[in-house]
Amino acid sequence: MFAIDHLGVAVKSLEQAKTIYERLGLHVSPEEVVAGEQVRVVMVPVGESRIELLEATSENSTIAKFIAKHGEGLHHVSLRVPNLPRVVERLKKDGVRLVSEEIKKGAGGHRYVFVHPASAGGVLLELVEQEAHP
Amino acid sequence: MFAIDHLGVAVKSLEQAKTIYERLGLHVSPEEVVAGEQVRVVMVPVGESRIELLEATSENSTIAKFIAKHGEGLHHVSLRVPNLPRVVERLKKDGVRLVSEEIKKGAGGHRYVFVHPASAGGVLLELVEQEAHP
Repeated sequence: MFAIDHLGVAVKSLEQAKTIYERLGLHVSPEEVVAGEQVRVVMVPVGESRIELLEATSENSTIAKFIAKHGEGLHHVSLRVPNLPRVVERLKKDGVRLVSEEIKKGAGGHRYVFVHPASAGGVLLELVEQEAHP
Repeated sequence: MFAIDHLGVAVKSLEQAKTIYERLGLHVSPEEVVAGEQVRVVMVPVGESRIELLEATSENSTIAKFIAKHGEGLHHVSLRVPNLPRVVERLKKDGVRLVSEEIKKGAGGHRYVFVHPASAGGVLLELVEQEAHP
């Protein structure tokens, strides 16, 4: 049901940041460019979760702005939740602050919403829909 | 084998920070005081991992100092790794910066070491020994 889907980590250099995971003996995926979000990404699967390292490809990318303000480090935590639409309805009713009110669709077709850090102990909390065939 | 053991989140108020997880339908453990680390803690099990919310009980606690400097948010990521002593030997040999050189023993008897954020893309990365009976 519930799981930590992934952790998104904003880094200056994928090349440098990925070495610790390689040294631990974890598999690091080849780099991939996500043009829409102006980032290069590598994934590190860890059990049922993964760590995503994100490097900006442009100064305008969210990740570049994040690093300029906060330095390198965790950018968001993504939780897999069952029945996302019902969960989002409930959160709205409870007055939880969401980054955007409607559920969005990501590149892979998965649906997601972000809870604002002000409503989640300072963590940018992504909620993603549990896959039909996990 | 490998897994995200837990995420440690530094918060000002457990009472406030835990509500988002309750609203998602997750179970939040009763509060517990860890006197040695001057924190109050609640745990939120999420799949094979858990989210630990940490509130300082004293201004001298690591968590209070972290919040004073960075605000609320993720404090550390803890990975369960097989054969911790061998891993630590390898990391040292590779020149990875550790917060302390020797493996320490936590309250529950588990062994752990922290990799410095400078060697892990800005993330304070705890490595904990996989339990004998997970």
